[in-house]
Amino acid sequence: MSTTARQLNLNLFVYPAGHHEAAWRYHGSAVDRILDIDYYRELARRAEAARFDAIFLADGPSLPDNVRYASRFRLEPFTWLAALATATTHLGLIATASTTYTEPYNLARLFASLDHLSRGRAGWNIVTTGAPQAAANFGLDEHPAHAERYARAEEFVEVVGKLWDSWEDEALVADPVSGVFADTDRIHAIDHEGPRLRVRGPLNTPRSPQGRPVYVQAGSSEDGRAFAARHAEAVFTAHQTIGSARAFYADVKARAAALGRDPAHLKILPGISPFLGSTEAEARALHEEFNQLTQPAYSLRQLRQLLGVDLSGHDLDGPVPRGLIDGRGERGVGSRFQVVVDIVERERPTIRQLLHRLAGARGHRVVVGTPEQVADTIEEWFTTGAADGFNVMPPHLTGGFEVFADEVVPILRRRGLFRTEYTGRTLRDHYGLPRPRSQYAEVAARATG
Amino acid sequence: MSTTARQLNLNLFVYPAGHHEAAWRYHGSAVDRILDIDYYRELARRAEAARFDAIFLADGPSLPDNVRYASRFRLEPFTWLAALATATTHLGLIATASTTYTEPYNLARLFASLDHLSRGRAGWNIVTTGAPQAAANFGLDEHPAHAERYARAEEFVEVVGKLWDSWEDEALVADPVSGVFADTDRIHAIDHEGPRLRVRGPLNTPRSPQGRPVYVQAGSSEDGRAFAARHAEAVFTAHQTIGSARAFYADVKARAAALGRDPAHLKILPGISPFLGSTEAEARALHEEFNQLTQPAYSLRQLRQLLGVDLSGHDLDGPVPRGLIDGRGERGVGSRFQVVVDIVERERPTIRQLLHRLAGARGHRVVVGTPEQVADTIEEWFTTGAADGFNVMPPHLTGGFEVFADEVVPILRRRGLFRTEYTGRTLRDHYGLPRPRSQYAEVAARATG
Repeated sequence: MSTTARQLNLNLFVYPAGHHEAAWRYHGSAVDRILDIDYYRELARRAEAARFDAIFLADGPSLPDNVRYASRFRLEPFTWLAALATATTHLGLIATASTTYTEPYNLARLFASLDHLSRGRAGWNIVTTGAPQAAANFGLDEHPAHAERYARAEEFVEVVGKLWDSWEDEALVADPVSGVFADTDRIHAIDHEGPRLRVRGPLNTPRSPQGRPVYVQAGSSEDGRAFAARHAEAVFTAHQTIGSARAFYADVKARAAALGRDPAHLKILPGISPFLGSTEAEARALHEEFNQLTQPAYSLRQLRQLLGVDLSGHDLDGPVPRGLIDGRGERGVGSRFQVVVDIVERERPTIRQLLHRLAGARGHRVVVGTPEQVADTIEEWFTTGAADGFNVMPPHLTGGFEVFADEVVPILRRRGLFRTEYTGRTLRDHYGLPRPRSQYAEVAARATG
Repeated sequence: MSTTARQLNLNLFVYPAGHHEAAWRYHGSAVDRILDIDYYRELARRAEAARFDAIFLADGPSLPDNVRYASRFRLEPFTWLAALATATTHLGLIATASTTYTEPYNLARLFASLDHLSRGRAGWNIVTTGAPQAAANFGLDEHPAHAERYARAEEFVEVVGKLWDSWEDEALVADPVSGVFADTDRIHAIDHEGPRLRVRGPLNTPRSPQGRPVYVQAGSSEDGRAFAARHAEAVFTAHQTIGSARAFYADVKARAAALGRDPAHLKILPGISPFLGSTEAEARALHEEFNQLTQPAYSLRQLRQLLGVDLSGHDLDGPVPRGLIDGRGERGVGSRFQVVVDIVERERPTIRQLLHRLAGARGHRVVVGTPEQVADTIEEWFTTGAADGFNVMPPHLTGGFEVFADEVVPILRRRGLFRTEYTGRTLRDHYGLPRPRSQYAEVAARATG
């Protein structure tokens, strides 16, 4: 194959014991190590050995109320990824962080530092926070509405972008002879005065290796798509069918192109949660074993969170009452709501069947099969306009990732779809993204040009 | 010697190229590695090899305006210390963080995570932020006044303490058989509603190994001493003379005792910046070499920051104009202001001599001499009521720390003043501090007791 053939981008999306809601109960799980940094360092090293693009951590600034039945506490992404950075040399490190519940100056510092200490491997999954209970942890009476959150996100991204650019690349001089440590003519106050944020700057650290972290975005609502088209360099998205994924892919790429962006610089990465077996029957048996470990008390709470509808009074083996599913999902889960509605429309499941459908990956696609079958799915999505790569969400860890790395990745390589070696060092290199110049250097260049 | 003899506590306080303002210009400096995490990992490993208690990073959420002439950018402490945690197994990790410019929920998460991933080695240097320019990075017109900052700090410490206690130690059950991951009866909303902060909680992560980080405090103003007496488990402080240090030591210990605290649980740790030579003449020559590398344009700005007085129009070799030093220092530098006034009163220096006196460690004590002489100073302060240990501030790195570890530490050991091996694993162990129970467990115990 040509070395320039389009290649998959693969991230490892890590949940403490795995993505399946019952992962922590599985006999092969590492539930005793979910707070042990060495467990995550081993996972990161495995992902790097498989030449994955990045490791990814979700986040939210509140405690999910279903923690009674599953390992749904939160790892703090910056500290955790900084510790993983030192276990690896090439693997990208993507932290989820909220524009609603952080201060831009503090967040800009955390990402600049993560990018420095990893030598250019930081990515930011930009979220506005969907969980309304976060508000009460920050002195607010109400979680801001969807549109208000996105309006702040727009301004927030503008501000942190200016902060990351506030030191031009050449500002750090460090010349012992002249005594000039920093060229302060190349360090800029940003003097941002917007409707929601006022930040003077400059940032208190030199510009980082990637200039700024890779921008990732995960909302698929109308606001989310518009935001992605403007800013995102990678989009995480949930699709149950290739048709839905293709429509999303075409829509977001077209929106980016309409804004003058190169669509190749916006990677569409659906989630995929693979249950693997050496035969299809073995894979199905494994999947069923996980279904048996689920707890309806938990699964019904999860469903209520996705739909805003409580089905706990109903017969689990009866049909999903169609009339109960209405549009009340204004909680950042708008697009995930539609995923569930589509399943109900298409498959007419019982409540229990629906709970099992969602137990694996909260609405992301679960594939059950042999390594060849999973590779076939990946290839089909990749080559027919549904995906540029995937957020791999192992149902259980570490085994669920090991079998993917050991059995599926070699098939993808034989088919010429995935790298055998890294060709660069930074996350921008892996995704084929340019390194932005400082916007202040641009201004200076124009002024003198 | 008895193994129970009182032992020194020694921290390594790290500035990017060393504490002397001209450290980065010294031929032995690592100025080319000041953004290289491996340089700091090597330093941390050396500190651990010397059996130091902790490594300490200062911080502030703005860019010091004197960065033109010295390496006065900021390393973001949480990411940086997380990366150092994985290079060490025993060394404490003390992060400075502001109660004025952070949200308690976010800060509680960062510390809990640092404590988890280091297995109980986190310390928090609680500051209210002295630099008024921080305000404009957070949308404020004015830096809050000293008293207001301390009032918020009081409430902030109460809130994060509740958050760290919000999961009792026994809340994490993780029993695959019963299906209970967390005992939600042992996870508590904190429902804090105070004059400045409203936080519902609970925290979104299990209780950390130390329960909460070790509380460190560094302000020596009246408000600062009162705060230290109530909360601090270690106090960083600047003293030029043993007399001043003894008075401070006695005062803060007495205040703690008056509040019913065990004074042994509050360590007084002055800063010390040692210039070492194999003879006193060699040490003096080294110190003079650093003096020659200073830049008056920088030093005068530093002085202006400490005193609120600009001396740049004056003859550097003339006397410090006494009338110019007045009380205008309301910027969290109140106690450091007094240190400078005392030097002027005592030594009647020229302006240049004063600049050199402050160039080493910004008002902390600089000692110039042989390893025996430096050890003598340390022993005298330790054994006569001036210090429980020291924040060691090497004038240049890494050499300035290596010679301390290689030449001074062995003398302290021979004199029975400093450990040869760690006797515990956590920072609380090193400082001889108890691990607090969750305040919610106390309540439960009282209710059932």
